[in-house]
Amino acid sequence: MAAQENTDFAAVDLIRSKRDGDPLTPEQVDWLIAAYTDGRVGDEQMAAMAMAIHFQGLGPDELSRWTAAMIASGTTMDFSGLSRPTADKHSTGGVGDKITLPLAPLVAACGVAVPQLSGRGLGHTGGTLDKLEAIPGWRADLTNAEMLRQLEDVGAVVCAAGSGLAPADKKLYALRDVTGTVESIPLIASSIMSKKIAEGTGALVLDVKVGSGAFMKTPERAAELARTMVGLGTAAGVRTTALLTDMEAPLGRTAGNGLEVAESVEVLAGGGPADVVELTVALAREMLAGAEVDADPAAALADGRAMDVWRRMIAAQGGDPDASLPRARHTEQVRAEADGVVGSMDAYAVGVAAWRLGAGRARKEDPVQAAAGVEWHRRPGEAVRAGDVVFTLHTDSPERIPGARAALDAAVTITTTAPEPRPIVLDRITAD
Amino acid sequence: MAAQENTDFAAVDLIRSKRDGDPLTPEQVDWLIAAYTDGRVGDEQMAAMAMAIHFQGLGPDELSRWTAAMIASGTTMDFSGLSRPTADKHSTGGVGDKITLPLAPLVAACGVAVPQLSGRGLGHTGGTLDKLEAIPGWRADLTNAEMLRQLEDVGAVVCAAGSGLAPADKKLYALRDVTGTVESIPLIASSIMSKKIAEGTGALVLDVKVGSGAFMKTPERAAELARTMVGLGTAAGVRTTALLTDMEAPLGRTAGNGLEVAESVEVLAGGGPADVVELTVALAREMLAGAEVDADPAAALADGRAMDVWRRMIAAQGGDPDASLPRARHTEQVRAEADGVVGSMDAYAVGVAAWRLGAGRARKEDPVQAAAGVEWHRRPGEAVRAGDVVFTLHTDSPERIPGARAALDAAVTITTTAPEPRPIVLDRITAD
Repeated sequence: MAAQENTDFAAVDLIRSKRDGDPLTPEQVDWLIAAYTDGRVGDEQMAAMAMAIHFQGLGPDELSRWTAAMIASGTTMDFSGLSRPTADKHSTGGVGDKITLPLAPLVAACGVAVPQLSGRGLGHTGGTLDKLEAIPGWRADLTNAEMLRQLEDVGAVVCAAGSGLAPADKKLYALRDVTGTVESIPLIASSIMSKKIAEGTGALVLDVKVGSGAFMKTPERAAELARTMVGLGTAAGVRTTALLTDMEAPLGRTAGNGLEVAESVEVLAGGGPADVVELTVALAREMLAGAEVDADPAAALADGRAMDVWRRMIAAQGGDPDASLPRARHTEQVRAEADGVVGSMDAYAVGVAAWRLGAGRARKEDPVQAAAGVEWHRRPGEAVRAGDVVFTLHTDSPERIPGARAALDAAVTITTTAPEPRPIVLDRITAD
Repeated sequence: MAAQENTDFAAVDLIRSKRDGDPLTPEQVDWLIAAYTDGRVGDEQMAAMAMAIHFQGLGPDELSRWTAAMIASGTTMDFSGLSRPTADKHSTGGVGDKITLPLAPLVAACGVAVPQLSGRGLGHTGGTLDKLEAIPGWRADLTNAEMLRQLEDVGAVVCAAGSGLAPADKKLYALRDVTGTVESIPLIASSIMSKKIAEGTGALVLDVKVGSGAFMKTPERAAELARTMVGLGTAAGVRTTALLTDMEAPLGRTAGNGLEVAESVEVLAGGGPADVVELTVALAREMLAGAEVDADPAAALADGRAMDVWRRMIAAQGGDPDASLPRARHTEQVRAEADGVVGSMDAYAVGVAAWRLGAGRARKEDPVQAAAGVEWHRRPGEAVRAGDVVFTLHTDSPERIPGARAALDAAVTITTTAPEPRPIVLDRITAD
């Protein structure tokens, strides 16, 4: 007991140091994260620390150590026994962002294993597991052994992250959510990267979204987050790059679980919305480069190899790739009120509408509707006439429609001249 | 339930507002303090809020409302039925600060009732109740009825604050103590003033200490705290002024419970250290002016009227004013190592030494020794020869002496030329 006290710190001293702008020492960071994980440091102290970090930041050395301490709070995975290299992708979350669904089988089809540990959605952006669960029979929970076997046999797996990875992050994330400390860039970066590094991937591409539907509203904040995460990944030996991608308008033509699966299958079949195809291929190139595999993802999409992996990936987790996707019991059309060109479509508003229709959840224990969501029939730059259907709303709960309509009220602007086309990939950030 | 939710706020939204520099509305402040007091807002949320306030401050309107909400969390007292006006004093805490002991009876002797609700010491500054408890028989706990009767009959009462005054402050203070949010000026000001305003005094003088032995180390911070508190008191209808007073050197010639009682009795007898007399009279003048009573406190000290009230005040609470004060079982002398003039004496070091000898407590449940403390036989500006006794240490626990000696190691500087005399009152701050 006495010996242990000698290596202890007082949490209040660490909070005061950070509050006053002094860096935490490596030993202090290690102690703080370990003591918070096992409850010796209370939520009220970690909340004050998180707010002090919001104002004072964490330097590069502090942040690396913080991330390492969160990784050390739990177990890590090891894919070094696989016969092929690994690459993973993380998106900071956007509306209509179904990219993981075509991307994972596409990259696997090019010879790289993709161990994609995913989460469920909360708020206006959907979760990858919620989307795949729209497929009859598909299950998100795999044992580590099942995951490894599927990576070896199929090459791609999308499943729920086990609770053993970075438990400190899980506890800290829940605390940040209720204490107004979610937006801190070092805390976001260490949260994401602790899980991705613990997962043991060899290469990682980060899709950092910018715009109204994204968590980062400005290119400057998005670039700072991207640089911070690329630095953390690189320092931990993971070949990491980031793309900054547009999230002013929603991605593709649908937001909602089953709707996005259907759109993903279109992409895998060689069709689908151009922006989804473009972003999928761009991210695939980054992952293949990170894994040092020379292959052409556009070809693997065009010739059906990616679709083949998709079908095997779904089947391996109990899903029927040929089953019909659930259809909503109620649909409703929203029509244009004027002639012109769609000038903008607000991704956040579309995300809120899909969420209100039942595609998302307000609390993490809420169920989601597999068939609920929003389909948009016009994208920015496309012509429209008064009376044309702009949105189709899907839901099993008709009482949810007025709320969704209200969210979409000002979501679309109709102009007389076509807007400048926006590139989907805004910037690329690498370690050097 | 539904109706209540309509008037509720989400704590996380309020934290985010404050974090981003937006003021809280009056309704938000009221809700936050009430919800924190009854547990609907958790410690982790209030800790994040307190840290956000540390960085973003509280504007004058927010701070008044915050203080009012803390007052409204509990009961208030009312002295309007007394036959004379009331005045109270609050000190931000210093080493050797026994001023309340001569001051309360002195002001009462001039015709103003002094309802002094006091606390116990924690850390290097002593508590007024701890000091008076060195007097055999004296008790700190009075009922409200006993307190009112003593104020009417004797004119002065020093007793423990009931738990009903500003319970939100009690809870928040304990939280700030462990979350590194003690030093925020608005939180300090609202903590002190909520209790003083709830206490119902008509006039109030604040003794804001500045220097090594004080909580405020610089005149600028002390003046800011004083201005903030004077503003809060004035806005609440309490005639409030503040004196900024020196706490580089400790006050008087003793620090320790019984030692300070003895020194106070010397002052009441017309003697005592010049700085203690000067500060007592200066604070008395402020209290009398605030109570709009025209009287000369120096005369009331000189002619024994203050001593007469002291004796009655002690006796009314069960104490024997003629009883011998406890004497420490062990004393130790610390001698000068050089000839010269005392250049400075570090109040903080003296406070720590007294605390280590047993005069103070490390935790609020610790007992204190009535006889422990430090006596200094030289003050800054006084001549000294090598071998002269500079300090006498008093304790019942001889094992505590080395720690106290260590604290005093560098406490005194001996120089060849006398330092510039320092005034005890550095500044006076009023509402206009």
